[in-house]
Amino acid sequence: MSNAPGYFVSFEGGDGVGKSTHVRLLGQWLGEATGREVVTTREPGGTELGVELRRLVMHGDDMDPRTEALLYAADRAHHVASVVRPALARGAIVVTDRYLDSSVAYQAGGRELGEEEVEGLSLWATGGLLPHVTVLLDLDPVVGAARLSGEPDRLERAGDDFHRRTRETFLRRAAADPRRWVVVDASAPLDDVQAQVRVDVAARLDLTPVVEEAVESTEERA
Amino acid sequence: MSNAPGYFVSFEGGDGVGKSTHVRLLGQWLGEATGREVVTTREPGGTELGVELRRLVMHGDDMDPRTEALLYAADRAHHVASVVRPALARGAIVVTDRYLDSSVAYQAGGRELGEEEVEGLSLWATGGLLPHVTVLLDLDPVVGAARLSGEPDRLERAGDDFHRRTRETFLRRAAADPRRWVVVDASAPLDDVQAQVRVDVAARLDLTPVVEEAVESTEERA
Repeated sequence: MSNAPGYFVSFEGGDGVGKSTHVRLLGQWLGEATGREVVTTREPGGTELGVELRRLVMHGDDMDPRTEALLYAADRAHHVASVVRPALARGAIVVTDRYLDSSVAYQAGGRELGEEEVEGLSLWATGGLLPHVTVLLDLDPVVGAARLSGEPDRLERAGDDFHRRTRETFLRRAAADPRRWVVVDASAPLDDVQAQVRVDVAARLDLTPVVEEAVESTEERA
Repeated sequence: MSNAPGYFVSFEGGDGVGKSTHVRLLGQWLGEATGREVVTTREPGGTELGVELRRLVMHGDDMDPRTEALLYAADRAHHVASVVRPALARGAIVVTDRYLDSSVAYQAGGRELGEEEVEGLSLWATGGLLPHVTVLLDLDPVVGAARLSGEPDRLERAGDDFHRRTRETFLRRAAADPRRWVVVDASAPLDDVQAQVRVDVAARLDLTPVVEEAVESTEERA
């Protein structure tokens, strides 16, 4: 990590685990508890250019895996250079919905690219910027798909090998780097998940006593 | 190079050296002389996706160098996967106006990225596809700028350090890999430059005797 005074938090996990909700709730809480500026953002599509790249990736039916990986990496490079690094330099807390681990899990999990090359591409794109803490919202993909659609026919599609491999990749990466990752069971009720996220994130970040007090009161309430 | 039965030719050089004209003339001649399919194309913007990426790169005023390099690499990956490799697999001759050496010369020459990393990115994007022959149309950038605009005030801008460094990078790369590169003096009259290009390209490619005869008659006329 650079000497930037801010903090960088990423959320990872499959579709339907509640990432965008927990990013928003954690961001609000961190802002109130620390008095710091908080920037909540996302990948892909966290910038104007990123929105266009996201559209190109989503609509490119017959795109080869390297083109796809390079477009996600370009989105990430621009997001980091124009949003994340400037915010960290201002001392802000940046909370992003997906970062490089999503590329590794989705693009290297079951396609023809290797994990190391996809990760290497992202690290090159970002000048080696890794989050201080990465929260994995872990959930059986069948449950996540049901949350998204409510339709049983999506259960089987989402519960297929691809999503199982993606979940396994997230869990394996979290186990391999416990200093950066925290794993939260996302099958619990939303409030319980958010309370656990706050405890785990505050414990990893060197935040002010204000946060510690807030965490303690959260724990007392829990 | 892969075992694809086609031939891959790239043209490199600064603005105003006549690349697009010589790509077209060489392509016509190769088609007539060999009876093979010839695909003339360009980077960036040789595909539908590439046109969009070219637009994004050109209009992104405050784009950081890594984002720019990744967008060019994505354009190249898609161009190679969807146009160049399929054509080579059909046995066609592909002639492209710019390829990876332009990225190295423009993006690594005078910006913060290194030559090796820009080249490595392109090689990853293309699965290591290099041209059988690369024609450098070499010209003093001051002369090239005058051809483009006819206005003296563009001479100085185009003759600045950036364009001199770009030319030097092309020449240095050509000198370092004479098996792939041929250098043609682009200050000569157009017909003479094209005649030299034909001689040099045919000599490098293992083409049919038809081409050798055509080259001989070209040499006799010259």
